[in-house]
Amino acid sequence: MEPAERGALLAGRTIALLFYESSTRTRTSFELAAKSLGATTTLVSDKSSSIEKGESLKDTGLTLRALGAEAIVLRHPSSGAPFLLARTTGLPVLNAGDGMHQHPSQALLDLRTMLARLPGLDIGADIHAGTLNGITVVITGDIRHSRVARSNAMLLPRLGARVILCGPPELLPEEALGMGAVEIERDFDRALGQASVAMMLRIQKERLAGTTLDLAQYVERYQLNSERYAARAQPGTLVLHPGPIIRGLEISGEAADAAFSAIEQQVTQGLAIRRAVLARALGAAV
Amino acid sequence: MEPAERGALLAGRTIALLFYESSTRTRTSFELAAKSLGATTTLVSDKSSSIEKGESLKDTGLTLRALGAEAIVLRHPSSGAPFLLARTTGLPVLNAGDGMHQHPSQALLDLRTMLARLPGLDIGADIHAGTLNGITVVITGDIRHSRVARSNAMLLPRLGARVILCGPPELLPEEALGMGAVEIERDFDRALGQASVAMMLRIQKERLAGTTLDLAQYVERYQLNSERYAARAQPGTLVLHPGPIIRGLEISGEAADAAFSAIEQQVTQGLAIRRAVLARALGAAV
Amino acid sequence: MEPAERGALLAGRTIALLFYESSTRTRTSFELAAKSLGATTTLVSDKSSSIEKGESLKDTGLTLRALGAEAIVLRHPSSGAPFLLARTTGLPVLNAGDGMHQHPSQALLDLRTMLARLPGLDIGADIHAGTLNGITVVITGDIRHSRVARSNAMLLPRLGARVILCGPPELLPEEALGMGAVEIERDFDRALGQASVAMMLRIQKERLAGTTLDLAQYVERYQLNSERYAARAQPGTLVLHPGPIIRGLEISGEAADAAFSAIEQQVTQGLAIRRAVLARALGAAV
Repeated sequence: MEPAERGALLAGRTIALLFYESSTRTRTSFELAAKSLGATTTLVSDKSSSIEKGESLKDTGLTLRALGAEAIVLRHPSSGAPFLLARTTGLPVLNAGDGMHQHPSQALLDLRTMLARLPGLDIGADIHAGTLNGITVVITGDIRHSRVARSNAMLLPRLGARVILCGPPELLPEEALGMGAVEIERDFDRALGQASVAMMLRIQKERLAGTTLDLAQYVERYQLNSERYAARAQPGTLVLHPGPIIRGLEISGEAADAAFSAIEQQVTQGLAIRRAVLARALGAAV
Repeated sequence: MEPAERGALLAGRTIALLFYESSTRTRTSFELAAKSLGATTTLVSDKSSSIEKGESLKDTGLTLRALGAEAIVLRHPSSGAPFLLARTTGLPVLNAGDGMHQHPSQALLDLRTMLARLPGLDIGADIHAGTLNGITVVITGDIRHSRVARSNAMLLPRLGARVILCGPPELLPEEALGMGAVEIERDFDRALGQASVAMMLRIQKERLAGTTLDLAQYVERYQLNSERYAARAQPGTLVLHPGPIIRGLEISGEAADAAFSAIEQQVTQGLAIRRAVLARALGAAV
Repeated sequence: MEPAERGALLAGRTIALLFYESSTRTRTSFELAAKSLGATTTLVSDKSSSIEKGESLKDTGLTLRALGAEAIVLRHPSSGAPFLLARTTGLPVLNAGDGMHQHPSQALLDLRTMLARLPGLDIGADIHAGTLNGITVVITGDIRHSRVARSNAMLLPRLGARVILCGPPELLPEEALGMGAVEIERDFDRALGQASVAMMLRIQKERLAGTTLDLAQYVERYQLNSERYAARAQPGTLVLHPGPIIRGLEISGEAADAAFSAIEQQVTQGLAIRRAVLARALGAAV
């Protein structure tokens, strides 16, 4: 599709961005995706919203619909909020992250990055149940609180990938096996040795408090850095991170900037994914 | 007017949204109205504004004018602020709510909703002093602090409507009779029995504190719910609410969603009203 | 250039506004400048950004670049931040104010206002090392903390202007002479008598705390007001202020609104300057 044609795809259509949590990258990504298709956007964030005044999610949604919004992009701290909003408004609701539950567009952009970068895969080909056969994805970090891990654990095995979760018990309880067809490997070095893709998750210091693990120990055992990559990873192992990254904690700055890192490319693929899901939600074909 | 034609009506024109108070619905409504006419908007809110730095409303207005704004939509906590801003900038200022004073576009959208929904009225006809003859509008709730009540009390009697204010003395002092050609009826059931339109106002719990009324008593005496509607209202009585609504307080969820409620339609009519007042302010005809 | 042509100059281009500090006038000015050239903008402010989550400026910049931003307008509390961001992203970075360091587009708009308003100068002519020969600019107020003063002290002498800094030692230490080819004159009346341009800077009350000067004394000695202007200034002396102004403190309301004040015109020239620097950054010619 020509840029000019793409830029008119959603001309005259309205998309509401409803963010009950702060977010730079996801909000900006959906916003720029919508604008690049010619849609009009309006941002409602927790700072300015009627939420403070006790209005329910349902009523905020009905208001946005009555204002002409044809789709709502929702970031919400409660699991299931997008489902509730879709049911009460009847509008397409794009889940931009709901609590510790799901972040589906992130999993799709992770997938798209793999298709673009892993040898033998083709970003232009149809996707089917065997697309990721032979690919091992190791997801490491605070799995317990991660909607990114949850969405990837749901998506990737369906396409044939082996998914290994890695982290200390405090951040990766055994119950995580219930996320889907996933395995647990506590030793990061061993996990990394099997990875086609090493997806690192952000660590929030406050989540380590009260555990048996201190920050220095976490870094020692689980940080993805150039030395560990050189020593343990297979040639060509791709490093992903949903961001924001904390350099020097779950990943070293050098590793984040290395050729094996696809962190920036993930962001760019995210724009493509969000264009696609927005266009699809509004019944247009990209 | 064709959508494409409407979408170019204010192309190249700039409208500033100056919000010193949080607002979802009014800000979003004006913003989408302006954008749908092709105008460029910029939002200045209290969170980001120079107000923190002590700049006066006048100087913020002069700055926006110097930046090319041709109209300013103002929400401000002080009564009369839009008048001051219009005088100092010479620009058209759209009052999006000033303290406890006025909210004129809300009254206009309420009127437009009545014209669209009440039997015997015609949304396309010219408006004159007798347009609302025979219509009784009951406004119930926290009249004392309500700019919506004030604007409706000013507008509706001029068009021939009878306006009844309803609520306990703490929220509806006798002085409210000074709002215009209005009456007071403290018994909600009796008022509802006469209503062509029942306009419910939001109750803020903190405003009941220190009064002789507790929340449960308020709900018992003044809540608009399906049982009360069935028992007391005339057939066809229209229920309005400027929002945000607090389900279970001044209105039950069931009543808010009922066929006799026009709450969502109010929001949609608000978009039309704001398109009209913005176009008029900039000298364009919709 | 025709308005329609200008409005398409940056069509399809994306500009990110990255504001780590609150700002009305500078943010709005850059935003409206970008939009008036047809660019798509996205605003990332400290309220909503990943900064809270510990993301570095570098990574925020890389994310914006990966999202398609072709230039970043940055306001940041740290001196040198725009340089760092430009180096790490390789993108054009427009410095919208960095700490107490520089505010270059402000100095450019001050220059442009002088060219438009001072007799003998021509806003349409080429600028060279002698353009401001014979012009004396007196900058008065809190020089110590002022990036505006610093940028003007760097720019104006290069074009031949004489720059005099004025203020009490607490706000104007002798070290300020290191800013460039500038002089210090502590007596405002004497300085004003030599001024072609009197540029007044905002005073923050808290900055006077702990000094030997109280507010009343500051006002008495350094306020630009109509009486002092009449008594001391040369005919035609132009008064500038970067805003936001505090009427009654560094400048009287009457003086701010007088014909000799170009404060509003500065804002309008700022829009032109930001259009020019944005177009230049994106390789377009205005």
